[in-house]
Amino acid sequence: MRILGIDPGYAIVGFGLISADRGEQKLLTCGAINTKAGDEMAYRLMQIQDDMKQLLETFKPDVVAIEELFFNTNITTGINVAQARGVIMAECCRAEIPIFEYTPLQVKMAVTGYGKAEKRQVMDMTKRLLKLDDVPKPDDAADAVAIALCHARSSTSLLANKYRKG
Amino acid sequence: MRILGIDPGYAIVGFGLISADRGEQKLLTCGAINTKAGDEMAYRLMQIQDDMKQLLETFKPDVVAIEELFFNTNITTGINVAQARGVIMAECCRAEIPIFEYTPLQVKMAVTGYGKAEKRQVMDMTKRLLKLDDVPKPDDAADAVAIALCHARSSTSLLANKYRKG
Repeated sequence: MRILGIDPGYAIVGFGLISADRGEQKLLTCGAINTKAGDEMAYRLMQIQDDMKQLLETFKPDVVAIEELFFNTNITTGINVAQARGVIMAECCRAEIPIFEYTPLQVKMAVTGYGKAEKRQVMDMTKRLLKLDDVPKPDDAADAVAIALCHARSSTSLLANKYRKG
Repeated sequence: MRILGIDPGYAIVGFGLISADRGEQKLLTCGAINTKAGDEMAYRLMQIQDDMKQLLETFKPDVVAIEELFFNTNITTGINVAQARGVIMAECCRAEIPIFEYTPLQVKMAVTGYGKAEKRQVMDMTKRLLKLDDVPKPDDAADAVAIALCHARSSTSLLANKYRKG
């Protein structure tokens, strides 16, 4: 199974593609979609959507795993991130790829086994689980890989539970 | 000039198309895009985008006027509205139609001349300014018409200022 993790944003959208087969996960590729600060928001949103379309066509993921949004201090940033998340979700639906949403807590739990893990710990475990030499760069890509990993490990454990019960 | 006003939402997107020529504004049509509560959010967002594409192709507006978002109490609703607004803006950009954003305060000021006007007063003035028999229905459509009117009346006064200075 090919899982595309997405860390939504309007300036940077992180992505990470992993394969997950028989409990083993491998990093296939990762990176980021970037938009220019000087461009109009509507144009940046269109660009994100166009780039997402390309990513989906190129990578052909079986599922997309995306982070759920929580608004903290900066509401204006939050609105813009949500607008970007909207075009990403619409594009996944257009490509008929199922979307799974995970909270930051779920990502931390699935990757480190500890809900209060620091960002650093999540990155280190992502590196170890995927047997990488370094943490993926930029940070947004590393976050996206962690989200993909979260889906792989959540669905694996769901499957394991299912087998145990059966 | 044909102005398409948009009141963004994820369950209901209000729209109102007016013509504005030589200081006179006429309502051409208005209505709403509706999405089903039971459908997945990604699907609803795609539907909104598809319907926006159709509206833009059918109505051929010269500009789109859309309300700026402010989050009050319900953050979850706010995230969903922002996601919908994202696909609406991306689609306007795709159709190469300029987008103007107005705050609720600007809409109230432009339509009633009073920034603290009640919703009812905005609707009544919308009805009077466009010489309508009734306030447009549903409310989301009436709001969208008021936003279009805001653009018509703001750009008229901007033009007047420009001529005065010249």
